Amino acid sequence: MDEIPRVTEGRYLGQVDATLVPRFAGPATFARLPRPDEVSDVDVAVVGAPFDSAVTYRPGARFGPGHIRESSRLLRPYNPAQEVAPFARQQVVDAGDLVVNPFSIDEALGQIEAGTRALLERAGKVLVLGGDHTVALPTLRAISSVHGPVAVVHFDAHLDTWDTYFGAAYTHGTPFRRASEEGLLDRSGCLHVGIRGPLYDASDLRADGELGFQVVPSVELDALGVAGVVERIRVRVGDRPVYVSVDVDVLDPAFAPGTGTPEAGGLTSRELLAILRSFASLRLVGADLVEVAPAYDHAQITGIAAAHVAYELISAMAPRG
Amino acid sequence: MDEIPRVTEGRYLGQVDATLVPRFAGPATFARLPRPDEVSDVDVAVVGAPFDSAVTYRPGARFGPGHIRESSRLLRPYNPAQEVAPFARQQVVDAGDLVVNPFSIDEALGQIEAGTRALLERAGKVLVLGGDHTVALPTLRAISSVHGPVAVVHFDAHLDTWDTYFGAAYTHGTPFRRASEEGLLDRSGCLHVGIRGPLYDASDLRADGELGFQVVPSVELDALGVAGVVERIRVRVGDRPVYVSVDVDVLDPAFAPGTGTPEAGGLTSRELLAILRSFASLRLVGADLVEVAPAYDHAQITGIAAAHVAYELISAMAPRG
Amino acid sequence: MDEIPRVTEGRYLGQVDATLVPRFAGPATFARLPRPDEVSDVDVAVVGAPFDSAVTYRPGARFGPGHIRESSRLLRPYNPAQEVAPFARQQVVDAGDLVVNPFSIDEALGQIEAGTRALLERAGKVLVLGGDHTVALPTLRAISSVHGPVAVVHFDAHLDTWDTYFGAAYTHGTPFRRASEEGLLDRSGCLHVGIRGPLYDASDLRADGELGFQVVPSVELDALGVAGVVERIRVRVGDRPVYVSVDVDVLDPAFAPGTGTPEAGGLTSRELLAILRSFASLRLVGADLVEVAPAYDHAQITGIAAAHVAYELISAMAPRG
Amino acid sequence: MDEIPRVTEGRYLGQVDATLVPRFAGPATFARLPRPDEVSDVDVAVVGAPFDSAVTYRPGARFGPGHIRESSRLLRPYNPAQEVAPFARQQVVDAGDLVVNPFSIDEALGQIEAGTRALLERAGKVLVLGGDHTVALPTLRAISSVHGPVAVVHFDAHLDTWDTYFGAAYTHGTPFRRASEEGLLDRSGCLHVGIRGPLYDASDLRADGELGFQVVPSVELDALGVAGVVERIRVRVGDRPVYVSVDVDVLDPAFAPGTGTPEAGGLTSRELLAILRSFASLRLVGADLVEVAPAYDHAQITGIAAAHVAYELISAMAPRG
Amino acid sequence: MDEIPRVTEGRYLGQVDATLVPRFAGPATFARLPRPDEVSDVDVAVVGAPFDSAVTYRPGARFGPGHIRESSRLLRPYNPAQEVAPFARQQVVDAGDLVVNPFSIDEALGQIEAGTRALLERAGKVLVLGGDHTVALPTLRAISSVHGPVAVVHFDAHLDTWDTYFGAAYTHGTPFRRASEEGLLDRSGCLHVGIRGPLYDASDLRADGELGFQVVPSVELDALGVAGVVERIRVRVGDRPVYVSVDVDVLDPAFAPGTGTPEAGGLTSRELLAILRSFASLRLVGADLVEVAPAYDHAQITGIAAAHVAYELISAMAPRG
Amino acid sequence: MDEIPRVTEGRYLGQVDATLVPRFAGPATFARLPRPDEVSDVDVAVVGAPFDSAVTYRPGARFGPGHIRESSRLLRPYNPAQEVAPFARQQVVDAGDLVVNPFSIDEALGQIEAGTRALLERAGKVLVLGGDHTVALPTLRAISSVHGPVAVVHFDAHLDTWDTYFGAAYTHGTPFRRASEEGLLDRSGCLHVGIRGPLYDASDLRADGELGFQVVPSVELDALGVAGVVERIRVRVGDRPVYVSVDVDVLDPAFAPGTGTPEAGGLTSRELLAILRSFASLRLVGADLVEVAPAYDHAQITGIAAAHVAYELISAMAPRG
Repeated sequence: MDEIPRVTEGRYLGQVDATLVPRFAGPATFARLPRPDEVSDVDVAVVGAPFDSAVTYRPGARFGPGHIRESSRLLRPYNPAQEVAPFARQQVVDAGDLVVNPFSIDEALGQIEAGTRALLERAGKVLVLGGDHTVALPTLRAISSVHGPVAVVHFDAHLDTWDTYFGAAYTHGTPFRRASEEGLLDRSGCLHVGIRGPLYDASDLRADGELGFQVVPSVELDALGVAGVVERIRVRVGDRPVYVSVDVDVLDPAFAPGTGTPEAGGLTSRELLAILRSFASLRLVGADLVEVAPAYDHAQITGIAAAHVAYELISAMAPRG
Repeated sequence: MDEIPRVTEGRYLGQVDATLVPRFAGPATFARLPRPDEVSDVDVAVVGAPFDSAVTYRPGARFGPGHIRESSRLLRPYNPAQEVAPFARQQVVDAGDLVVNPFSIDEALGQIEAGTRALLERAGKVLVLGGDHTVALPTLRAISSVHGPVAVVHFDAHLDTWDTYFGAAYTHGTPFRRASEEGLLDRSGCLHVGIRGPLYDASDLRADGELGFQVVPSVELDALGVAGVVERIRVRVGDRPVYVSVDVDVLDPAFAPGTGTPEAGGLTSRELLAILRSFASLRLVGADLVEVAPAYDHAQITGIAAAHVAYELISAMAPRG
Repeated sequence: MDEIPRVTEGRYLGQVDATLVPRFAGPATFARLPRPDEVSDVDVAVVGAPFDSAVTYRPGARFGPGHIRESSRLLRPYNPAQEVAPFARQQVVDAGDLVVNPFSIDEALGQIEAGTRALLERAGKVLVLGGDHTVALPTLRAISSVHGPVAVVHFDAHLDTWDTYFGAAYTHGTPFRRASEEGLLDRSGCLHVGIRGPLYDASDLRADGELGFQVVPSVELDALGVAGVVERIRVRVGDRPVYVSVDVDVLDPAFAPGTGTPEAGGLTSRELLAILRSFASLRLVGADLVEVAPAYDHAQITGIAAAHVAYELISAMAPRG
Repeated sequence: MDEIPRVTEGRYLGQVDATLVPRFAGPATFARLPRPDEVSDVDVAVVGAPFDSAVTYRPGARFGPGHIRESSRLLRPYNPAQEVAPFARQQVVDAGDLVVNPFSIDEALGQIEAGTRALLERAGKVLVLGGDHTVALPTLRAISSVHGPVAVVHFDAHLDTWDTYFGAAYTHGTPFRRASEEGLLDRSGCLHVGIRGPLYDASDLRADGELGFQVVPSVELDALGVAGVVERIRVRVGDRPVYVSVDVDVLDPAFAPGTGTPEAGGLTSRELLAILRSFASLRLVGADLVEVAPAYDHAQITGIAAAHVAYELISAMAPRG
Repeated sequence: MDEIPRVTEGRYLGQVDATLVPRFAGPATFARLPRPDEVSDVDVAVVGAPFDSAVTYRPGARFGPGHIRESSRLLRPYNPAQEVAPFARQQVVDAGDLVVNPFSIDEALGQIEAGTRALLERAGKVLVLGGDHTVALPTLRAISSVHGPVAVVHFDAHLDTWDTYFGAAYTHGTPFRRASEEGLLDRSGCLHVGIRGPLYDASDLRADGELGFQVVPSVELDALGVAGVVERIRVRVGDRPVYVSVDVDVLDPAFAPGTGTPEAGGLTSRELLAILRSFASLRLVGADLVEVAPAYDHAQITGIAAAHVAYELISAMAPRG
Repeated sequence: MDEIPRVTEGRYLGQVDATLVPRFAGPATFARLPRPDEVSDVDVAVVGAPFDSAVTYRPGARFGPGHIRESSRLLRPYNPAQEVAPFARQQVVDAGDLVVNPFSIDEALGQIEAGTRALLERAGKVLVLGGDHTVALPTLRAISSVHGPVAVVHFDAHLDTWDTYFGAAYTHGTPFRRASEEGLLDRSGCLHVGIRGPLYDASDLRADGELGFQVVPSVELDALGVAGVVERIRVRVGDRPVYVSVDVDVLDPAFAPGTGTPEAGGLTSRELLAILRSFASLRLVGADLVEVAPAYDHAQITGIAAAHVAYELISAMAPRG
């Protein structure tokens, strides 16, 4: 019952040593990173929010955090695309799952907010693995309690700024309306990327704009290219503190079948990852990665894409120089 | 845009005529039976309760009614095992889905109860397709408002008489405790069949007995045989009005992978169907069939088993002589 | 047993009201639209042709119409990409499935033609959900009986202008040769988009050209871009009456695994949908969407792509202004 | 490009030598047995009849022969349950696939009959791998041309003695009625095993009896046990020449999901194999194994069961003593 | 970053408290039990041996330990079938995965033996989760170094007493021959249960007997019943120290599709679990559970069966009275 | 038992005649091409190397050759994209599988090298179907024994020039380092295409360059386009003898889920096929296609892409003019 061998670089405790423990073995933490109790300081905390009781169609994202972790075993320590070793420049840990009540949306939101606030007392940044998109709201509450209103770069097929469903104000279709109403967002600095598919009404987009969002539809990727989208984001966000929210359904169902409200015509994983890599030059303060529903995944297509998304976000959070 | 050709026998409008419309075509109602608006009187109403917001593990039974319907296309008109043509002795319809709010367990229970009560004003009997097992409670409320306290024959891997989860009194693990507490059950006539797997505590079984249930564990099928189980049920139930509740997880995961809380060591579909066939001699007043979660099914293994369960229940409801 | 609540706009009866009935519930019609017997007038009829007895490789498209319907539940009322509400500008209905004999190709073609003709007496336009590509022929017969020879824009990996297989003249590889021979096509206005993969002989393309088709191979998408393809179509088709035929295998198997004769190297769903959106400016008189074989689909990847294809086609059919 | 190493025993050329070529490698013939052109004499020919154009529900059995072959790689040379080495007592070959026209039931039946007759000129016995159950008819025609009317032991969920579907006399639901009408059956010696599920009419069973069949329903397995069924068969069949027809849907969908018309409540593979083993004492003259539809299989559950069925049949055909 | 709430009973630290943390959340240890570093003493250590480089057919059991853990989340604290709370009578932990070299069978066997020996210095008993069946050999070496030669009750479709494959002495088909040769087994007390399928030669069984094994073939379950098998084991094993080795392919492929060398005609999970429950009266000193290959599993059918097997074994190890 | 009808053109024996034998029937050779013993001369030999014992993550590529063959049934005789009939200009055969020992990497490498050398005595060129990427090394040894050091165009997500894993020098992550060290490569003419995902260290790329490789990362496809990549390859390779090595994981997991070490952000099949088509102007001397792991594939998405890759490579090998 010896200790698990780990890679260390300087004062940072890294992944399980893959030269000794095969990647298919060892602990099921994200990227086989340490738990918080194994380290003294924490820079970035990856944490699960296994909550999906506020979805409107296919449920199952409650199993998302575990699936992303299991799909992250192949992540290696050096990111050539960002030219950084993300776990050797900052202490990254997997903080496990937040406690959530599956039977009460209200209570769950409170638990997620409290859990994230507690994490932020120890970690500088968090990456929340959902769970459905509802979890973005309590996370933003916790983040903005530290950083004030933030710019949000939101990758999604859907606007998620609707008002209510069946009388419920807090669902996976409404987090950014609530966040804007609550003053958590810097309305001059938010945008959606990847929007597509039918809406409820022509007025949806207008309302969305009033809440602070610009839109880069999925179909414009062809004309703008990745570089064009990156520039659109850069101009919009500037040097504001930025929160990135990635709904995995921003990817086309071919690249992310394992999700709850899929829409055809989405981004490729190559496009999404390339855009995220540019965020090393933004002032990232937190992120979420949501709506991975493993029961609909196959051979971890979705899980692996999500693991890479998380890896690029953590790399972008790493200090340079 | 002609009418769909249907089989009729006497005054009963039956299934789509399979000699004219192949079974893979035509409307997606249960067994390709008519809708209520196509007939004048209704004896048995099959109705969906697409609700799964009260599950403790895998969600997805909200898609159960549609999956059972799609898996019921092969059902033919004559049941040789019961020697009855179930759609030619009573008017059976598919009443579609009850309206349910996925974000509020309380509201959903109210909607299901109200919808079932409304159905019972027109139909003598209902067969509710879940949805998770929570739907048994509002259905029993509606049934007992007509018939008074009923005997319940409950097929399940689990007792479903626990008290609360995460402070919630109404979940898929608690319907029969609530029903017993509310006086909906005839405590001298209830039993569970197929129970297996770990419990929370040794006291669970004692509490369960006090609520009115006897237990026929799954493993006793080998010793008792189907005939022995049938006899146990007959003795327990007698001539009481009987409500049958079938959680598809009473079947072994091999026979019903598409469900939310699977437990190894269950019944075979041959055993379950044989037991149900004996219910023609009971006084059936209603039934449910719950916990079919299609995202975990394969090639309709679970769906087809469920469709046959429904067929045997409807056949058992048919008047003889 | 109340009526299902529906959205209406002006004189058009629309989808089931999603604010009252969750999208995972309610009737299994395309986009939860009404049946013909629920409305007085019909502008566009969506109809299934569940026939796959003329396929050369994987069968299963007989289950295609049901699968597309089930995959269309997420379609919402407003199409921002075309800036139109397709169900609020025209009466769209789901006319169910045509009756087809699975054991006789000849009889089935006659049934599909007769059924489509009957539909066209009531509806201005039809969208036929296959079924295999054979169904394009009887549909074109019915369409041209109203509109005369039509231009065909045909999306497919394959030419479908071969002559016979095993002595059979009417198969899923031959509909457009037969249609051209029968004078149903305006030979100056047809083209294929998405062609790829091996042929039988170098002469196949020459023969195809003589039948009236130009070819935009899949691989040219990279050079032409969507805009270039749209322009190629516009120039070729002009103001002729246009029939659009979409074989789902025009998409790469990554985007449409659920089909019968898949070929690598296909279109993305983003490309296909973008091209279809431009058809609002064409004179669409009818369309089909074929070769969806659900047994090979996963998590509705193919079904959802197909549902969006249908949605863009119906949107393009909607009157403007 | 050396020869493939094979096991030989006496004059019989056997399987690829598994001590040299791993079972996951080597030719894709049934049980890695030789082709006819590799041997001089043939005792038993396994042959594919990849035809499924006469099915009423799920197609796909055209891929059945290849799937059974691929699932047969684990079969080893000695059968302890029958105490015989089936490939060392008789020359068994895989004769590949019969040529069949997928677009004409009539022509296909003729091709299968002709092909089987040709095989029987060289081989004493055939085992036909379907394809759908229609292939039993032309096989019986060829068999009875050699042996006269035969007793048929038919394992199936369905009677397959219906008359016509959609006007078609030759479908997968009718082969044994046609065979009886054509005088191919010894009406005093036939029986069905495993029948279950709904029928069209109460008269179906009566008509079936007049065609020469007794019935052992699936549900009677519990009471009779395997030994009882074996005795029922032995008494019925006596020393008549026997043809065994195994529709894989005789197994419960849990044991055979990959089939076209599944019915819940079927046999286990243990029961079926045990019954087949008793046939060593019958006078087997031929057999078929049909309705394996791989698109609905998972992890070769159905394929492996089918491979074992074939292995027990071939073992039962082996001369003893 | 608070501690995870756990159930404790007396001095034993138990599972994560399911009244606070839903079963779909929390750490991915077996049954959500603690790690060794969370407790002071250890009675039973569950440990993974993710090694599959010695398989002859389908690989993939290297992912078995993780899959069994993920499938064990539903296990609750009280086992009514054995009337014991297995985690409240002994300290059970999940010791993670042993380090194994996937490229050297020899080195891996050494690592597994060393790792198990190290565990046995701290824990009284081990349950090894494979991995392929090769892992039984080093485990037996470690066990017998403590207990001397042991009786082995071996559940499997295969004898696993073959000699060599491709010149390799240590493979998943040979562990019990090697163990017998090395004197690790009490040859008067071993037996196989569930054997079936073809062998290499009639002499296989004779050789197997000389190595110390009796055989209870799968097909005899019908005649013997569970009680008969239990008695056969009891008589054979007596009061010897017993090692139980469960190859999940002892179950029929319907109950365990996720394995590497499946054979039709196996046990049901109900039978296997019932037999294992009787082992509470044996003198269990260790166990393994091997050959779970998740890539071939569906909806955790195999994983859940395996989790229950492990639960019954741990329950049988619990001290009584 | 007649001969299988085949297409012939001049002196070349081609595919099974698809006008007589449906593509879903007939032998399971690659593209239904002849075996070596059916022809006198051989120009190109397709051969399987079913070996996967040197993988670091998901195993299963041992079943790759059979899966690619089964997925190649739709390949037709004329390649319009290269304007060549690849089987009518050269004699192509399927030489079956090389014999490989799954338990010894060293022995397997020797067997593959010997087998390939033997093939090259008869065939001018080989296309090896893996198996894992280790098989590239023995193939290159055999190739370079004929052609001297070769330029390698290597399509992969990974560099495969690492040094050792767990002390093993010969694994699927090291073939090109070994090949370079052994002098099999022309270090002035090699390059990787499609590289992406995390590395072990920043120095990996530097070491790789010293071994003779340039890198075209996957993400550069967007900027370079297919034409740019083709030009990069042409300039690098010149008129050197070229060996092409295609690891199917160069494709994005959406296009190739069935592989062992998937990385998000890969090529599309349209891009890969377009690049390969340009190789008709290179001096191809051999190729491999590796890492197809069918257990993770769905509906042959990966298999079909691989079959097309093989088809383009064989077409590029065909003599022109």
